Amino acid sequence: MTRYLNLAEYISSRIEQGLYGPGERLPSVRALSLEHGVSLTTVQQAYRVLESSGLAIPKPKSGYFVPAGRRLPELPKMGRPSLRPVDISQWDLVQDLMRQEQNANAIQLGCGMPDTTAPTLKPLLTALARISRRSDSPSLQYNHLQGVLTLREQIARLGVDSGCRLTPAEIVVTSGCQEALSIAIRALCEPGDIVAIASPCFHGIIQLLKAAGLKALEIPTDPVTGISLEAMEMALEQWPIKAIQLTPNCNNPLGYIMPDDRKRAMIRLAQRYDVPIIEDDIYGDLAFRYPRPRTLKSFDDDGRVLLCSSFSKTLAPGLRIGWIAPGRYLPQVLHMKYVGSGTTATQPQLAVAEFIAKGHYLPHLRRMRKQYQRHRDLMTEWVSRYLPEGTRVSKPQGGFTLWVELPDEFDTYTLNRLLEAEDIQIANGNIFSAAGKYRNCLRLNFAGVPNRKIEQAINKIGLAVAQLLPA
Amino acid sequence: MTRYLNLAEYISSRIEQGLYGPGERLPSVRALSLEHGVSLTTVQQAYRVLESSGLAIPKPKSGYFVPAGRRLPELPKMGRPSLRPVDISQWDLVQDLMRQEQNANAIQLGCGMPDTTAPTLKPLLTALARISRRSDSPSLQYNHLQGVLTLREQIARLGVDSGCRLTPAEIVVTSGCQEALSIAIRALCEPGDIVAIASPCFHGIIQLLKAAGLKALEIPTDPVTGISLEAMEMALEQWPIKAIQLTPNCNNPLGYIMPDDRKRAMIRLAQRYDVPIIEDDIYGDLAFRYPRPRTLKSFDDDGRVLLCSSFSKTLAPGLRIGWIAPGRYLPQVLHMKYVGSGTTATQPQLAVAEFIAKGHYLPHLRRMRKQYQRHRDLMTEWVSRYLPEGTRVSKPQGGFTLWVELPDEFDTYTLNRLLEAEDIQIANGNIFSAAGKYRNCLRLNFAGVPNRKIEQAINKIGLAVAQLLPA
Repeated sequence: MTRYLNLAEYISSRIEQGLYGPGERLPSVRALSLEHGVSLTTVQQAYRVLESSGLAIPKPKSGYFVPAGRRLPELPKMGRPSLRPVDISQWDLVQDLMRQEQNANAIQLGCGMPDTTAPTLKPLLTALARISRRSDSPSLQYNHLQGVLTLREQIARLGVDSGCRLTPAEIVVTSGCQEALSIAIRALCEPGDIVAIASPCFHGIIQLLKAAGLKALEIPTDPVTGISLEAMEMALEQWPIKAIQLTPNCNNPLGYIMPDDRKRAMIRLAQRYDVPIIEDDIYGDLAFRYPRPRTLKSFDDDGRVLLCSSFSKTLAPGLRIGWIAPGRYLPQVLHMKYVGSGTTATQPQLAVAEFIAKGHYLPHLRRMRKQYQRHRDLMTEWVSRYLPEGTRVSKPQGGFTLWVELPDEFDTYTLNRLLEAEDIQIANGNIFSAAGKYRNCLRLNFAGVPNRKIEQAINKIGLAVAQLLPA
Repeated sequence: MTRYLNLAEYISSRIEQGLYGPGERLPSVRALSLEHGVSLTTVQQAYRVLESSGLAIPKPKSGYFVPAGRRLPELPKMGRPSLRPVDISQWDLVQDLMRQEQNANAIQLGCGMPDTTAPTLKPLLTALARISRRSDSPSLQYNHLQGVLTLREQIARLGVDSGCRLTPAEIVVTSGCQEALSIAIRALCEPGDIVAIASPCFHGIIQLLKAAGLKALEIPTDPVTGISLEAMEMALEQWPIKAIQLTPNCNNPLGYIMPDDRKRAMIRLAQRYDVPIIEDDIYGDLAFRYPRPRTLKSFDDDGRVLLCSSFSKTLAPGLRIGWIAPGRYLPQVLHMKYVGSGTTATQPQLAVAEFIAKGHYLPHLRRMRKQYQRHRDLMTEWVSRYLPEGTRVSKPQGGFTLWVELPDEFDTYTLNRLLEAEDIQIANGNIFSAAGKYRNCLRLNFAGVPNRKIEQAINKIGLAVAQLLPA
């Protein structure tokens, strides 16, 4: 990353920590230049970045200041889902979202696509091409049902960063994280069973429960600390819950990272009620803080966590390379993998293994983490600027999705219709609830490089919201 | 293909048609050279091929003769499965088979691998490599849930050869045929349901039923004409059958092609009892006769056939590119695809689409069809030569698997243990039955180029069988 962006990040984190309060003067260009050993131009560039994110305002001849009126938008309220297991709806709305993703002219703010244009991904494409041309043509042949060994070795190695000790023999490579989740659910549950999920929750999981004939029990979730352990305990006491599905790190859609003590407590709770946990860690490597947060799996001492992840958000979704470390459920998971799709494609596995082994993965992650954090700040600024007063916004700790909450009575379904005509795609909040709650919420993707068009799109969203708000 | 192989095939088909009976003299080298406008050397090469397949024997100074004692081995008997729906076992044996596939030193005669070394596959590898390097990086991104449009267009176009009129909108690309079958079963059935299958039947389907909590009703099957329609009708009359799964073309493991009138009758039967049919056509393009046989789907006039196939047997299994044309069940199938694995990897879809669009697919098929037919003849000859008198052998009409039936009391499980020590892998017959029938049968793969090592392996199988046979 360039120097001025590093510096901008340094200053913005100081502001967020409260070192410089609203209205206060920020360090002078000269002082920062001396302190950090960079040129005056670099500092000026850094300040221009902060200016465009609304974090600093220039005053002629006096330097840069923290905006006086600056306050972060409020966080979304704690979810209030139905407290009973429910049958699942909303598939038509998910299809609607996917249909809109096919509109090449639309500004895609509703999808879960990462930015795949970073130059740090180049070695991956080179590896894909080279493997295609290898004279022994491994791309063409079946491989081990659990996946290519070199890839499982790399996944096990990366697991250390999240506090996990895994061996390649405990890992099964899958077609993306979705197959991992699907296998986990099918390995554990039978039609009619109840699965506890966070509320809101990724729609791919909710629809999976629907397809498997299961009922969802939505657990209230705090936008900063994650699922309510108290509500979870009550639910475990009251209902025959067959499995718990959680996304504790860089949650989609809320962006929280569950604190370690709460993760530990969650594991104890699952042990007490003897329930397995399906953990989705797909965004975990994209936490803005370093080292990355631990997984629930890292606190699991009796093999009850089925850890699911993939390279779809960190590298590229088109590869369809995910994996599952299912603990004590490995035999059932292997059977489900065999009958569900057989082995996973060989070539992308070899390419990802090579990419990690050659040391390209961590530098790429570093770049993307910083990029997404910058984008989050800018997107939050735009949403605060263009959406009506009272709009609540999540503060994601990783990943690239923002959760926006409008007044209770607001209906994003109508908003979506208005925006579709403007070629702007958003994700309606109610697809993130089994029972169709969160009609007043929407999820915005901030992976793509922020530009004038995206700012204009947020402006248009603001205007449309204002138009639909009751007077 | 070279001239002498063409000629060898011409002569062998004449022998099979009975134009030259056992002990009769075959046309002279000179006569064939004149008739076909080829050199004497070419004819001599052709005769040497026939000689090695046991179809011709040279007599000094008199030319070539059809072997006097030559008779084809008898076909396997009609299956006698249990006539009740059964719970499924044998998963441990399937795992055993897969474990043996990991032995790099073994001669793999038990697996379903096609030959991926043909030079006609080269353009596919070139396409894979080129797409990886494309500057817009389509390899990295999600695509349409139904799959890349250009590939669906090509699949629809190829469908014409099997008598199907399909549009791209009716097709869903999947991770191999196994995902197509899995989606079809899950879209139609609930735990406890009964599915009628042929007996014997591909173990991937049987295990799929097990994983979905279904019961299998095995229908007796003729090794030449396929499933018994009479038995099927009785079963439909007697049991609440939820779906029928059939592989009518180049069946795995038996190799039959169901005649068109029986296919038509099967569709009428399904209509009468209002049951959907899941048709597996994965080997259909590898029928030895041209034009290729029609699918059940081509006779289906009310959308009840879910046609599943892939490029795993015709091109390469490592690509994991299959597809399903689910007729009236498209909405359920799309939901299952979405929750099961999301979209399918982009790059191999683009590569296969390009391979077909540029006209490489049909020449490749022609080559493989002829190759596999030659291999079948040679493998049949070796099995007749080396296995004990009374061994029955299927006569596959396409694909690359041979079904070998030993005396009723024979147990291939013990055989397998003996052969494993010799690094020879076979597929035990009982994994092709839901209830573990066919312990006296085995399936042999003849895709690979036949060589001295494979002949020796068949010889060893013969010796081991003789050793195990009761005196």
